Amino acid sequence: MSLNNILNTKCEWLSGDGPDCDIVLSSRIRLARNLKGIPFPNAGDYRSNNEVLEKIFRVLRKTSFFKKGLVAKLSEMSDLEKQILLERHLISKEHLINRIESGVAISEKQDLSIMVNEEDHMRIQVLKSGFRLDDCWELIDNVDSELEQHLDFAYSPAVGYLTACPTNVGTGMRASIMLHLPGLVLMELINKVMQAVIKLGMTVRGFYGEGSEVLGNLFQISNQVTLGKSEKEIISNLNRVLNLVVEHERNSRQLMRQKNEARLQDRIGRAYGILANAHIISSKETISLISALRMGMDMGYINGIGGGSINELFIVTQPAHLQQSAGELLDAETRDILRAKLIRERLKQK
Amino acid sequence: MSLNNILNTKCEWLSGDGPDCDIVLSSRIRLARNLKGIPFPNAGDYRSNNEVLEKIFRVLRKTSFFKKGLVAKLSEMSDLEKQILLERHLISKEHLINRIESGVAISEKQDLSIMVNEEDHMRIQVLKSGFRLDDCWELIDNVDSELEQHLDFAYSPAVGYLTACPTNVGTGMRASIMLHLPGLVLMELINKVMQAVIKLGMTVRGFYGEGSEVLGNLFQISNQVTLGKSEKEIISNLNRVLNLVVEHERNSRQLMRQKNEARLQDRIGRAYGILANAHIISSKETISLISALRMGMDMGYINGIGGGSINELFIVTQPAHLQQSAGELLDAETRDILRAKLIRERLKQK
Repeated sequence: MSLNNILNTKCEWLSGDGPDCDIVLSSRIRLARNLKGIPFPNAGDYRSNNEVLEKIFRVLRKTSFFKKGLVAKLSEMSDLEKQILLERHLISKEHLINRIESGVAISEKQDLSIMVNEEDHMRIQVLKSGFRLDDCWELIDNVDSELEQHLDFAYSPAVGYLTACPTNVGTGMRASIMLHLPGLVLMELINKVMQAVIKLGMTVRGFYGEGSEVLGNLFQISNQVTLGKSEKEIISNLNRVLNLVVEHERNSRQLMRQKNEARLQDRIGRAYGILANAHIISSKETISLISALRMGMDMGYINGIGGGSINELFIVTQPAHLQQSAGELLDAETRDILRAKLIRERLKQK
Repeated sequence: MSLNNILNTKCEWLSGDGPDCDIVLSSRIRLARNLKGIPFPNAGDYRSNNEVLEKIFRVLRKTSFFKKGLVAKLSEMSDLEKQILLERHLISKEHLINRIESGVAISEKQDLSIMVNEEDHMRIQVLKSGFRLDDCWELIDNVDSELEQHLDFAYSPAVGYLTACPTNVGTGMRASIMLHLPGLVLMELINKVMQAVIKLGMTVRGFYGEGSEVLGNLFQISNQVTLGKSEKEIISNLNRVLNLVVEHERNSRQLMRQKNEARLQDRIGRAYGILANAHIISSKETISLISALRMGMDMGYINGIGGGSINELFIVTQPAHLQQSAGELLDAETRDILRAKLIRERLKQK
């Protein structure tokens, strides 16, 4: 599969289905792994990093996971292509700006990706639509086991997997859920709930991960602790906490419907009206309005638009995807015009 | 014709036709007239004011102008009914809050109204759709001549008609035009043009006349001088100046279309999208969005909505009209919900 094929294929994790998909956009697990006896990427030199890259690529090309997928060096990609992988959450921002020898492997369905020489030698990621941490774990555990047969991972019996950053030592695992919580935000309960979540040992982030602001009422909640617990314990703990958050969100939406339905419908209606009729729109405004539209759809106020189409809009309206579909680099103003056109057309099809 | 009939009939001046109706909403002329030898309303007492009211009402009831119209005392009307006449620009705010014996006469088409005992004994007003000061003058001159046959007006051969406020002495006439100038506003040329208009002896006001703020890019321009010039001179002077303003507005719209069409379409599209989908909307926001919608219609970006329907929306979405159509008094929040519903329904019919 060429990079171009990847770019022109929908991500499975945006399909808008799976358990609790009215509230949970996607589930994600990543594992940090390093090769024994070789410096971490940022401590290594060209030679050692290149050695890691070649070694890992040889193994990845042999496994079944990427047979119909892509295994490629970042140096072979254009800035736009890398930006698209970022917008699809298949690589991280750090990986994009990294100047050392690095690469990425992406499965055909784009539910599995491996960054080579990001902060660690390998960052293995599984991303799925809906509330499906267990499914993510099943797949990533398989991948990890198979790779371990061919690669010698840095591992200490006392603490577990060794990683470049001490916060990842142990399982090397971070599991996270992207939640859409407009009900809690509108009912002004979000801070209370998030404080509880943090007290229970979780981390809360925005749409683009670490350090990103909360846009469109999208919250990423992940485990803080990677050490001293098994992967399954961490996941079951997350599942327990997140089930409570999902329930709180559902109650808030119900409460809004009962107590202030006009205000709710107004928010949803205006979002739809602007998206379906604007001729210039920024990606920030787009995310915020699509968030309201998604709530309208999930609550039955907007019909005829699928959850998958809405989730996809989050991604295809982003700068690199827009430029990719236009076939050329565009300035911000032209992108805002093109984005509005794309959204109008998609919503007209409903 | 009962007051209820009036309330349920469309105003002719909102029909959205007439010369330059893409820019000129309406033309209006009013004459101030007082009866000789009787104190002005605010200087008079119950007896003298009542005498004026009875005397004028007797004459008005005899004329042909109000045969199918209405001649009624304000004391016989509810607050809501008076508020509706205000929203239709058939009486003034001063007349509404006036506590002295007063009345109003309204023609069947609502293009002619006479306030009795506002600031002067009589304020005769003709209001027509489009740029038609000459037509307004023809009708009001007829009305004035007929009334003069039955009533003895306070008149001085040296200065002309005498009025309660010295600024009206002479012709007692004020002629005004309601203009929709979004092009000049968006191209930031409005201040320059309005300063020129003021230098040429005109007065500029907002949608609700004296002291009102400019809403929805609607500007009322009228003659400042009432003394030392004939009515026809004043009108022809106004026509000359206003033709220039209309031309400037048309050029600005053309320029916007050429230079920044996306921004123009964005403004119009968002206005339409919000109006057609909101569930709560204030009358202020309504006026501003209808203004953009009207521009879109006048410039051919929005089709299938008539100018008359748009102009009518300016009026029927106002508080008293909303309450009238609901058949009950409503609080502000309920009005905002009802207003949004009305607008959604009207725009769906397009």
